[in-house]
Amino acid sequence: MNRCLILQSEVRTFIERCMLAVGTQPSHAACLAEVLVEGDLRGHYSHGLNRMDMYVKDVLTGICEKAGEPTVDKETVATALVNGRNLLGPVVGNFCMDLAIKKAREAGIGWVVAYGSNHFGIAAYYSMQALKEDMIGMCYTNTSPLVVPPRAKECTVGTNPISVAAPARDGDSFVLDMATSAVALGKVELHHRRGDVIPEGWGCDSQGRLSTDPAEVLSGGGLVPIGGCEITGGHKGFGLGLMVEVFCGMLAGSQYSKYIRNWKVTDRVADLGQCFVALDPANFAPGFKGRMSDLLSLHRGLEPANPETPVVAPGDPERFSIQKCRSLGGIPYDLSVVSHMNKFAKEIGVELLLPTDRPMAE
Amino acid sequence: MNRCLILQSEVRTFIERCMLAVGTQPSHAACLAEVLVEGDLRGHYSHGLNRMDMYVKDVLTGICEKAGEPTVDKETVATALVNGRNLLGPVVGNFCMDLAIKKAREAGIGWVVAYGSNHFGIAAYYSMQALKEDMIGMCYTNTSPLVVPPRAKECTVGTNPISVAAPARDGDSFVLDMATSAVALGKVELHHRRGDVIPEGWGCDSQGRLSTDPAEVLSGGGLVPIGGCEITGGHKGFGLGLMVEVFCGMLAGSQYSKYIRNWKVTDRVADLGQCFVALDPANFAPGFKGRMSDLLSLHRGLEPANPETPVVAPGDPERFSIQKCRSLGGIPYDLSVVSHMNKFAKEIGVELLLPTDRPMAE
Repeated sequence: MNRCLILQSEVRTFIERCMLAVGTQPSHAACLAEVLVEGDLRGHYSHGLNRMDMYVKDVLTGICEKAGEPTVDKETVATALVNGRNLLGPVVGNFCMDLAIKKAREAGIGWVVAYGSNHFGIAAYYSMQALKEDMIGMCYTNTSPLVVPPRAKECTVGTNPISVAAPARDGDSFVLDMATSAVALGKVELHHRRGDVIPEGWGCDSQGRLSTDPAEVLSGGGLVPIGGCEITGGHKGFGLGLMVEVFCGMLAGSQYSKYIRNWKVTDRVADLGQCFVALDPANFAPGFKGRMSDLLSLHRGLEPANPETPVVAPGDPERFSIQKCRSLGGIPYDLSVVSHMNKFAKEIGVELLLPTDRPMAE
Repeated sequence: MNRCLILQSEVRTFIERCMLAVGTQPSHAACLAEVLVEGDLRGHYSHGLNRMDMYVKDVLTGICEKAGEPTVDKETVATALVNGRNLLGPVVGNFCMDLAIKKAREAGIGWVVAYGSNHFGIAAYYSMQALKEDMIGMCYTNTSPLVVPPRAKECTVGTNPISVAAPARDGDSFVLDMATSAVALGKVELHHRRGDVIPEGWGCDSQGRLSTDPAEVLSGGGLVPIGGCEITGGHKGFGLGLMVEVFCGMLAGSQYSKYIRNWKVTDRVADLGQCFVALDPANFAPGFKGRMSDLLSLHRGLEPANPETPVVAPGDPERFSIQKCRSLGGIPYDLSVVSHMNKFAKEIGVELLLPTDRPMAE
């Protein structure tokens, strides 16, 4: 058995006590814990507890601020430019999304852009805040350069995610949350650790050639945009990555493209650019949620090519993951992650993360 | 020699006289002609003169209105819902984009959605209108179902394009204009006519399996989303296609997804949903155009993997096409297109399209 089950509340409070131990403002620690737990619940372990030590270290080294509030530099009835003041990404994200929703209530739409921000966990956490108000939410962020443009040999674009959430009936929703790279770096790393080759269309070597060797992708090469090589539309994925940069770094006046610090190198502040949008469907054709429900059920009800893999709508895999956690009564984690986190907790003198004693079937 | 050169003004006036011959309101004929010529100039022949007979027939059969004006159903300071009144797509598109720009001047952003619209040519034509005002422009439209979702066997999503344009210094710009399918249907048709196989990742057969046989894709199969199959991110392209549907059909209350009439079947009105956005960078960090210029030149200046194929930014291939037309002194067309159009012109009693006598090198 190499997995264990941990109560959601235990994960949340563990992250909080780690963050508090290094002096983070309690409300900020709570913000971060909530976003990371949501990442794990939704099955995106690469954006959850697994990354907690990065945030703790950022506060510990002072590369990220542990207290304060973002401020609004300028605004119109429907837009705002926010100074994230180098606070934790979720603090900036919540501030901006709240502001976008407030503006959408008044003007129909709120388009808020922040500079001086940091990693904020899963983008869907913010876009989904709009669902609570029966609004469409969007969220974009630029990230460290990991993607090689078509025809090039050098990483100049981040995995720059796009998230759009739209409410349907009875609490159902459409939730798109995708990197504009073909896959996340974590997937390539996983194949590398296992000694597996990667499918063609995930990454390239240092000469810009598609490669199935994860070692080549990780050392000198890079990820490729969605679409893979040029003949299958890689220039479209590249274009989408730059579109995110237009909404983020270009509007924000933050770092952008290859000027963003390298992934996992935290020798200087991140100064990420991020974009948060809320749009109220009430100002458009009546019946929005009904149409959304129909669009979702139309797709979920399609006859599948293979009966074992039903057609799913954006957000469904994450919904299944949350349901699984609910039925298990906690979040399943690899023991290696727990032992890594507890080693870290000991170093900073924090009470350990305590798994339940419920057995986990493989 | 199977190509000829036609003056841009001659193409424009030819389209106008064909549209006028069937009773189109002159200002509407002019709108359409301008968009189609722009499509050809930018090298997107599938969205130019080549499609003119479709528009003429739509007016001739009365499936599309030949006179009138779109109307605003409801609006806020930053949003509007427009009834396209089944007018020509470019008439609706120009009306909506003008309105979006007007709102962006007042509120910082204008988000305008139309129902009751028709095919409007290239999406970039509308997003680029915002460039004249130093604004970011966006344009989205839903389209007839041609794309099979991952795991499915049936076309339920259109090629649903995304266009985003952003101004840089000295008239330079970023212009993304992409279908959310891996390729356009026209590319598959072209390979079929030539008897060529298509690359894996463009389309699937009637069982939802990737296929390299264009005949299978065209008869019972369909295009696949950007990203191709699931392992290389096809679910992302599918998600983007549905995102466009959220911005268009869902907000507009128009036809959507598989309810949109089939491609080239015009037995009922199209009632397409479309979305037009203008966003003024002046309300965000100063220096937007300078950063855009840097982002573009940073990428254009990257060392290419192959010296013969330099790295390009979104919009560059179209810019090269326009430059080529300028240097040639006209737009190059296949003789087969010209003879098809002139056969059509004779049928409706219109003065023929007259190529120049300039020789065209192959």
